[in-house]
Amino acid sequence: MTSTDPRAFVPLAHAMADAAGAIIAGYFRKPIGVDDKADASPVTVADREAERVMRELVAARAPGHGVLGEEYGPDRVDAEWVWVLDPIDGTKAFITGLPIFGTLVALTHRGEPVLGIIDQPITRERWVGVRGEATTWNGRPIATRRCAALGAATMYSTAPSMFVGADETRWRGLARSVKLARFGGDCYAAGLVALGFADLMVEAMLQPYDYCALVPVVEGAGGRVTGWRGERLGLAGDGRMVAAGDPELHRAVVEILGG
Amino acid sequence: MTSTDPRAFVPLAHAMADAAGAIIAGYFRKPIGVDDKADASPVTVADREAERVMRELVAARAPGHGVLGEEYGPDRVDAEWVWVLDPIDGTKAFITGLPIFGTLVALTHRGEPVLGIIDQPITRERWVGVRGEATTWNGRPIATRRCAALGAATMYSTAPSMFVGADETRWRGLARSVKLARFGGDCYAAGLVALGFADLMVEAMLQPYDYCALVPVVEGAGGRVTGWRGERLGLAGDGRMVAAGDPELHRAVVEILGG
Repeated sequence: MTSTDPRAFVPLAHAMADAAGAIIAGYFRKPIGVDDKADASPVTVADREAERVMRELVAARAPGHGVLGEEYGPDRVDAEWVWVLDPIDGTKAFITGLPIFGTLVALTHRGEPVLGIIDQPITRERWVGVRGEATTWNGRPIATRRCAALGAATMYSTAPSMFVGADETRWRGLARSVKLARFGGDCYAAGLVALGFADLMVEAMLQPYDYCALVPVVEGAGGRVTGWRGERLGLAGDGRMVAAGDPELHRAVVEILGG
Repeated sequence: MTSTDPRAFVPLAHAMADAAGAIIAGYFRKPIGVDDKADASPVTVADREAERVMRELVAARAPGHGVLGEEYGPDRVDAEWVWVLDPIDGTKAFITGLPIFGTLVALTHRGEPVLGIIDQPITRERWVGVRGEATTWNGRPIATRRCAALGAATMYSTAPSMFVGADETRWRGLARSVKLARFGGDCYAAGLVALGFADLMVEAMLQPYDYCALVPVVEGAGGRVTGWRGERLGLAGDGRMVAAGDPELHRAVVEILGG
């Protein structure tokens, strides 16, 4: 392994997901105080504690690395390696007791996501994607399914309210063209694309910590993840994402959304 | 127990959910043929096999009872006791690999739901409601939470497309009034209301096998489930349902929806 090989950091990423999952599972379906942040997304005590323990692991085991987290913001994000963390992606699922939220752990190298974990600590599912390797689900290699035709595709999006203005018009056109458009799922939907049980995940208004982990997971399973105009996603991005299990389907969707 | 006591049939209901769950779990996330019925809902092999085994159990252990099932239709539904079955409620969740579908087993007495089971065979969760008793989740008594104010409530509905015409107008008004409106969940959302992690489940276009099991589960946890005009639900109904964890919230919602 060279010093730019992300595989060197897979054990640390597992340790971070393990530590976060233990905290988060302990708070799931327990009555806890729920704050509202400025952007109105619910944030729980579990969210903060889990991010804190993940940051401590980075500080102890990879002290030169930067961290960008949902709860505690950016720390040295100009470093060569930056961890991008969302302890609870899908906080609305979490607070309503729905076990399809996820912990997102990503590692970027010079701004590009090269390692991603989606962890679900209640159903005990973990997706691991590393650039250049096959994505695994609970240790087993997985692959997306072929689905080149838009009319045969199943699409997930978090909520219709994520799309406004011209984005809404384009997304609605897409939703009418697919076989099945579903809401909810958050990061878990990307896991379903990687497993080959859904074909598309289309989102807007995302932050880097919402999507960086999804890129290596879906691409390592054979899919493709970019912005709406087909651009690579990294620490910089306009918040719009299209993840497709079939690269041919991805091209068709980018033509519709990015025009 | 008298001959009208539904508790006599709880062991049979458990046996039905056990048998259905074993079949359904075996098909989850396996590539299987998916048909489209006339109403366009996906139906799987698992759905049919699970209903068949449940019907066989009724025939063997309660031969005088009627059965109404999603897959095989009505059989002696004029009997005093009628089982109302939906082997996979949330087929769209099921076929996309999302473990929040459920098996619904209900027993009606003279048309009224008196026993209900919601079973999730992947996360291994089972809600059991019996008229006059406290609802249980995996054997433990559970209770809804108090939430009388619409502005503090979390509401689940399957999809916006379930509401058309005047129903859509009323439902959208309600969705604007609650704190949080979420999509998806199917029967699992009723389980979240019973557990006290969501406050409302509002639906339309339901069939009796979609809602009969939910009534004893939510009401045995302290909530209330009726049609949009506040009428009791049973084998007859117009397909519109409001389930609320707090009876006071239920009254407020019926005033908005049923006017």
